[in-house]
Amino acid sequence: MITVDLSRLTGWDFHQIEKAMAHRLAAAHQILEEGTGAGGETTGWLRWPKECPAGELDKIQQAAAQICRDSQVLVVIGIGGSYLGAKAAIDLLGGNGPEKTQVIFAGNTLSSDEMAALLAQLENKSFSVNVISKSGTTTEPAVAFRFLRQYLEERYGEEADRRIYVTTDPQKGALRALARAQQWTSFSVPGSIGGRYSVLTAVGLLPMAVAGIDINRVLAGAREEMEQLSRRSMENPAWQYAAARNLMYEAGKKVELLAYYEPTFRFMAEWWKQLFGESEGKQGKGLFPASVEYTADLHSMGQYVQDGQRILMETMVSFQNSGTSLSLPYRADDGDGLNYLAGRTLEELRAQAMAGAAIAHEDGGVPNIQIQVPSRNPESYGALVYFFELSCGLSGYLMGVNPFDQPGVEAYKKNMFTLLGKPGYEALQQTLKNRSKSRKKAGKRNILPNVAKVD
Amino acid sequence: MITVDLSRLTGWDFHQIEKAMAHRLAAAHQILEEGTGAGGETTGWLRWPKECPAGELDKIQQAAAQICRDSQVLVVIGIGGSYLGAKAAIDLLGGNGPEKTQVIFAGNTLSSDEMAALLAQLENKSFSVNVISKSGTTTEPAVAFRFLRQYLEERYGEEADRRIYVTTDPQKGALRALARAQQWTSFSVPGSIGGRYSVLTAVGLLPMAVAGIDINRVLAGAREEMEQLSRRSMENPAWQYAAARNLMYEAGKKVELLAYYEPTFRFMAEWWKQLFGESEGKQGKGLFPASVEYTADLHSMGQYVQDGQRILMETMVSFQNSGTSLSLPYRADDGDGLNYLAGRTLEELRAQAMAGAAIAHEDGGVPNIQIQVPSRNPESYGALVYFFELSCGLSGYLMGVNPFDQPGVEAYKKNMFTLLGKPGYEALQQTLKNRSKSRKKAGKRNILPNVAKVD
Repeated sequence: MITVDLSRLTGWDFHQIEKAMAHRLAAAHQILEEGTGAGGETTGWLRWPKECPAGELDKIQQAAAQICRDSQVLVVIGIGGSYLGAKAAIDLLGGNGPEKTQVIFAGNTLSSDEMAALLAQLENKSFSVNVISKSGTTTEPAVAFRFLRQYLEERYGEEADRRIYVTTDPQKGALRALARAQQWTSFSVPGSIGGRYSVLTAVGLLPMAVAGIDINRVLAGAREEMEQLSRRSMENPAWQYAAARNLMYEAGKKVELLAYYEPTFRFMAEWWKQLFGESEGKQGKGLFPASVEYTADLHSMGQYVQDGQRILMETMVSFQNSGTSLSLPYRADDGDGLNYLAGRTLEELRAQAMAGAAIAHEDGGVPNIQIQVPSRNPESYGALVYFFELSCGLSGYLMGVNPFDQPGVEAYKKNMFTLLGKPGYEALQQTLKNRSKSRKKAGKRNILPNVAKVD
Repeated sequence: MITVDLSRLTGWDFHQIEKAMAHRLAAAHQILEEGTGAGGETTGWLRWPKECPAGELDKIQQAAAQICRDSQVLVVIGIGGSYLGAKAAIDLLGGNGPEKTQVIFAGNTLSSDEMAALLAQLENKSFSVNVISKSGTTTEPAVAFRFLRQYLEERYGEEADRRIYVTTDPQKGALRALARAQQWTSFSVPGSIGGRYSVLTAVGLLPMAVAGIDINRVLAGAREEMEQLSRRSMENPAWQYAAARNLMYEAGKKVELLAYYEPTFRFMAEWWKQLFGESEGKQGKGLFPASVEYTADLHSMGQYVQDGQRILMETMVSFQNSGTSLSLPYRADDGDGLNYLAGRTLEELRAQAMAGAAIAHEDGGVPNIQIQVPSRNPESYGALVYFFELSCGLSGYLMGVNPFDQPGVEAYKKNMFTLLGKPGYEALQQTLKNRSKSRKKAGKRNILPNVAKVD
């Protein structure tokens, strides 16, 4: 379903790419499928489209139907991999129509104004909450859940527990324990599937189903793509993408720009940034993932892409079929000089703008990869998710990292817990206090609010 | 009003920075103010907050009042610098409330589905159009204006011309000529102010005024900041920011991450990306500008920032005062273990998360700059715009580029016009045809739709 075009990968033709990368990809694909590579215990996503139990899907559909019956709003609480994929799907596939239950994402910020706005928005509206967190103790979602749970209890009293849906670890953790104690409806994130690879589980599927997206079609698309991508040869589009970005990385490119042409794709790009950034950005390695929305950003970032530091490669995603067809009106006056385009479709203009940019960027020293997706529909979404996940697993192994862990995420949390005085962080507190003293001695300023106390 | 903290710029203390950069900044500031540097003829933005005619503001206010009286929606057509600043202001300052005239941005995409959705959205709603384009022939806004003008005429007949507001060159160009012929209400972008520096002119002020933002307060903030930043010494926050990013660039950093903590700041970051990317990304130079929304992206891009390629520097923007104060509720069960935070405000949690991230990232090899803004209000917005514009002008001169041109933006347009068969591009058409033949001979695939014909 997904196709890749590497014909604008400056200096490399297909056979050279095959010669350089096919054997490395064969090895990577093998350890990935056998689960013998680093992080092999968390590759459950690899077969999930086929192994996802039918009973699980039924349970998700039933919960979604219940939420749609009794709630105008579903507040989904989650951060990182616990919200990006579902938000991407709903934005891309046009859920959240006026007659449907509206899905709002929370727990992904510590902004006071955002929380106040959310609570104000819920006034006079019936709502339920889906809290998504493997441990149940990640700060942002746990904090948001405290506010929302209190508000649910104010609004619904004893009925509040009936409006809480939990997606968490099948056995362990704070949220699982609470769900048991309070008899909340609960779903599991399989232990073998990490956060950023979890969108095709209940993590993503429950919010999608509530937004009116046919989750059976999403999984069907992922299953079909899974079969397409099982080939172990350079004809495999996931091999092509993983090969190309590693070749460019090894040739010194620093940044991969994901360029898209549909504004509704924005959060799919955010999901992609987490997937690749968190999987490869370790041990001082990894392409820095960034995204641009064309053609808008051709008029803002276009100058840099064309002519800035030559550290970029570019991956353009496009949809083959548009849902609509609009032809440019003719005007007798032709004051804007556009009559040479009158009668031609916006789709054609978009395609030529994209081709024009691809050629210009390659000419300017930015190697270009094209990824083409059939349509903006649930099957294509499922296929694209699986395509990127497999490409990322392969690519990470090519790069020599464990694409399934994220050890670096702990560093800021440790500091934050220390600064907040969390029990258990007393030793680090002393260290930060001493550092703060040295900073003051050295005459360092510090405008961070509330921080002077400890740091 | 805006303050900068450079105390986490690894390896550099304030006096070292001053020693290395003060004389270079003095020279840059002088040629900027005298207009003797490259692009000096387009530095009208430098004194604009003081020189903006009072009559212009009155005319904008009157037009805004008229639009609010007769329109539920204002469609603002513009791309790049013709929309990012106004969208940033409206998102950040909370315009678009339910009782106000809604401002919708268009003409910044060639997506067929987006145009169809926009036209559907306007059904049954009264609306006006503000088309913003210096030349009037930039493809995306010109195309969108054709669709909207036709729809206006269908809906309002002869009254349509009364609902069109034009912001364009004072004398020249297709849109100025049309505005004269049709007697549309029109505003000017001064010739001495380039697109990405134009948000404090009618380009940004008319949409802001319609959204209910007090544009006198915006300009007052910019004026106050203008005075603050007139100092020619390292005490000048714009000198500090320009110095720090150039030092890091010269030390080999490739990417500047703008990190913010308020989700409503997202399009301010997009505006910033155009400002710096388009001003500095030329002659193979420039920090690649990227943005992250914390704390959300600490759970997606955080791993890369902490532990990926060491090519990053980070600039964190925060607001000193939050509009709201919410304390974390206490829960008797403490199932999530958060009672150690009960009673403390979200603002405090946010501040400590930010401090924790700043310390962690500096420790991980990502030098950190802090920019602090007083409040999310019109004055601070105006001040921040002026602060970034002046910093960018100074920084571009330090980097040895003309921060006011964008020659690289033409490359893709030339190709696009050629592929679309625009009259005048016949010679280039032959070149692209020949290239296409060579590609075919070399067996290159091409999945770009509609492109095979020419390329």
